[in-house]
Amino acid sequence: MSRAGNRTGPTMHDVAAAAGVSQATVSLVLNDASGTRVSEETRHRVQESARRLGYRTNAHARVLRGGVAGMIGFVGDFVATAPFAGKIIEGAQARAWEAGLPLLTVNTGGDKELEESSLETMLSYKVAGVVYAGMYHRVLEVPEVLGEVPAVVLNSRDASGRLPSIAPDEELGGYTATRHLLDAGHRRIGMINIGTPDDVALPAAAGRRAGYLRALAEAGIAPDPQLLLDGDGEVPGGYANTLELMAADNPPTALFCANDRTAWGAYQALESLGLRVPEDVSVVGFDNQETLAPNLRPGLTTLELPFAEMGRRAVELVLAGDGPAGSRPAGPGRTELFECPLIERQSVAPPNPQRARYPHK
Amino acid sequence: MSRAGNRTGPTMHDVAAAAGVSQATVSLVLNDASGTRVSEETRHRVQESARRLGYRTNAHARVLRGGVAGMIGFVGDFVATAPFAGKIIEGAQARAWEAGLPLLTVNTGGDKELEESSLETMLSYKVAGVVYAGMYHRVLEVPEVLGEVPAVVLNSRDASGRLPSIAPDEELGGYTATRHLLDAGHRRIGMINIGTPDDVALPAAAGRRAGYLRALAEAGIAPDPQLLLDGDGEVPGGYANTLELMAADNPPTALFCANDRTAWGAYQALESLGLRVPEDVSVVGFDNQETLAPNLRPGLTTLELPFAEMGRRAVELVLAGDGPAGSRPAGPGRTELFECPLIERQSVAPPNPQRARYPHK
Repeated sequence: MSRAGNRTGPTMHDVAAAAGVSQATVSLVLNDASGTRVSEETRHRVQESARRLGYRTNAHARVLRGGVAGMIGFVGDFVATAPFAGKIIEGAQARAWEAGLPLLTVNTGGDKELEESSLETMLSYKVAGVVYAGMYHRVLEVPEVLGEVPAVVLNSRDASGRLPSIAPDEELGGYTATRHLLDAGHRRIGMINIGTPDDVALPAAAGRRAGYLRALAEAGIAPDPQLLLDGDGEVPGGYANTLELMAADNPPTALFCANDRTAWGAYQALESLGLRVPEDVSVVGFDNQETLAPNLRPGLTTLELPFAEMGRRAVELVLAGDGPAGSRPAGPGRTELFECPLIERQSVAPPNPQRARYPHK
Repeated sequence: MSRAGNRTGPTMHDVAAAAGVSQATVSLVLNDASGTRVSEETRHRVQESARRLGYRTNAHARVLRGGVAGMIGFVGDFVATAPFAGKIIEGAQARAWEAGLPLLTVNTGGDKELEESSLETMLSYKVAGVVYAGMYHRVLEVPEVLGEVPAVVLNSRDASGRLPSIAPDEELGGYTATRHLLDAGHRRIGMINIGTPDDVALPAAAGRRAGYLRALAEAGIAPDPQLLLDGDGEVPGGYANTLELMAADNPPTALFCANDRTAWGAYQALESLGLRVPEDVSVVGFDNQETLAPNLRPGLTTLELPFAEMGRRAVELVLAGDGPAGSRPAGPGRTELFECPLIERQSVAPPNPQRARYPHK
């Protein structure tokens, strides 16, 4: 399942989607920020979309006139300082602001004392609720004190099962990536993972691998252990693991790299072997990291982590949870899994019948 | 000038530097976070560095026992959701936490209403002060209400000159980059900027260009307008501008790209021309973007934006400013410029005497 659905009126997100730009750009244009580098053409497109959708920038004037209206707390480990998860905060903040509440964020850097102190501060300020977010999808021990307010675990799962959690559907993502390569005609599909599948605290590694195996099984292909490497999620690891995969007796014609950094390493390794993407080897990544995936040459086909939607939904659940723990509409312990959409670019093509001519053979 | 100097006792930053790892890694290790992927070797190195420096993770126990101790507000436009500026928040937060105060962050996305509401909320909560940060270095109109508390403008400059500001020394950075290429023996040095130098709201473009011109002048080289392009700071722009520069009658032997994304585009363009970095063309970037510069092949020599130090210093100034506006030790309207250190990797070499053999000639 499931994206957050029940919005009221057009949002900045809607204007951004209609204009084909980021929310940041919409905000820059509609607030007429000085010193910004938005082209006249983009500016016009945004204004036109806002007009057409009836988006009003002064939707919160009422709340502002009424004075301080509380806030929603957002406690993250590294999520707010990670180079790729900014959209999770953008999404959470956009939804909070639609309700007239600022989102106040603390980045704990994993420091448990800072986390405790920050939560005490937030609670003493009577926050409407707290979003507790992880930088990457894992199973977390959640602070006891979160039981005192509406709280949601975001991009991770509550180990105790007490709080509602929001996480990407990793298994479906791995399945979709592999299915896409199968549909292009590939039968020898390698996978470079971002960790070990037996690390229970890292559901992304286990889930993406399980999806890969399910897609192969559905296609009647027995997995080849030579083609499935654990990896480490970094560019140099992707490079080394790709060299290893391509040195197999019967090397793969396609690679599913379980994150975009690994895929970048794969591109570099394939290039060093004189192999072209996608003519010689197809590549699919995971994350749709905005600074990376569209800038690779050719652009990387990848799965998007739906951070903005997940962030929105987390705040939605906090806003809905006006009772004490246990009476929340979302239900404690429920995990909502968000589908990771496939973003198609230019890194996948049918298998190349000429591929025996690998230069290193 | 000038890094922040007067710290009290070893910080997490010091442990990270001593162990050669990120602050995030130090925090993960010292707080024994579960589900983390830190190697035993790294874990040992961090623990050893912490022990040797006498770093104590429970330095804030006193504050915790005393209950809530206030907070410092951090209002950013996009800085907290940008893919490269996380360290500015890490630095600010680390310094705030050393004083026992959580840093509460609001990302306004440039929304002026949200900014106003957030500041009202922060002030009603009696924050110790506010850091007002920009995603990239520009000249900002600062909200009036910031005059009511100790406030510092971070990674930008206050257009009114009322508040102390902290910004990178762009001119010195551009000079250092160009000087480094001159020192390697280059005389034909192209520059691809990140905007137009006459955009007064974008001091990074004007400053880096001025530094480039000063270094050339010092070396007795008249700037060639053919070798100086405005650019747009994006990867495709770097690609296109590099093709243009290399098509000049007397193409450059070295490129100063005014950000790392532009440099990545330059790498791609040079590769498409069959030219190697650094054997055929040397490249220097700007930003030291952590997901990018070390992952290019070869690793990119670049200037680092000292975000962590700048973030630390902003909080330092807020903490020092215990009087009303005007009596602050930092002095209103003062801008502290932070040097951008050169990070040497493998993208610079002496000019290649064989370079006449460009394949496209």
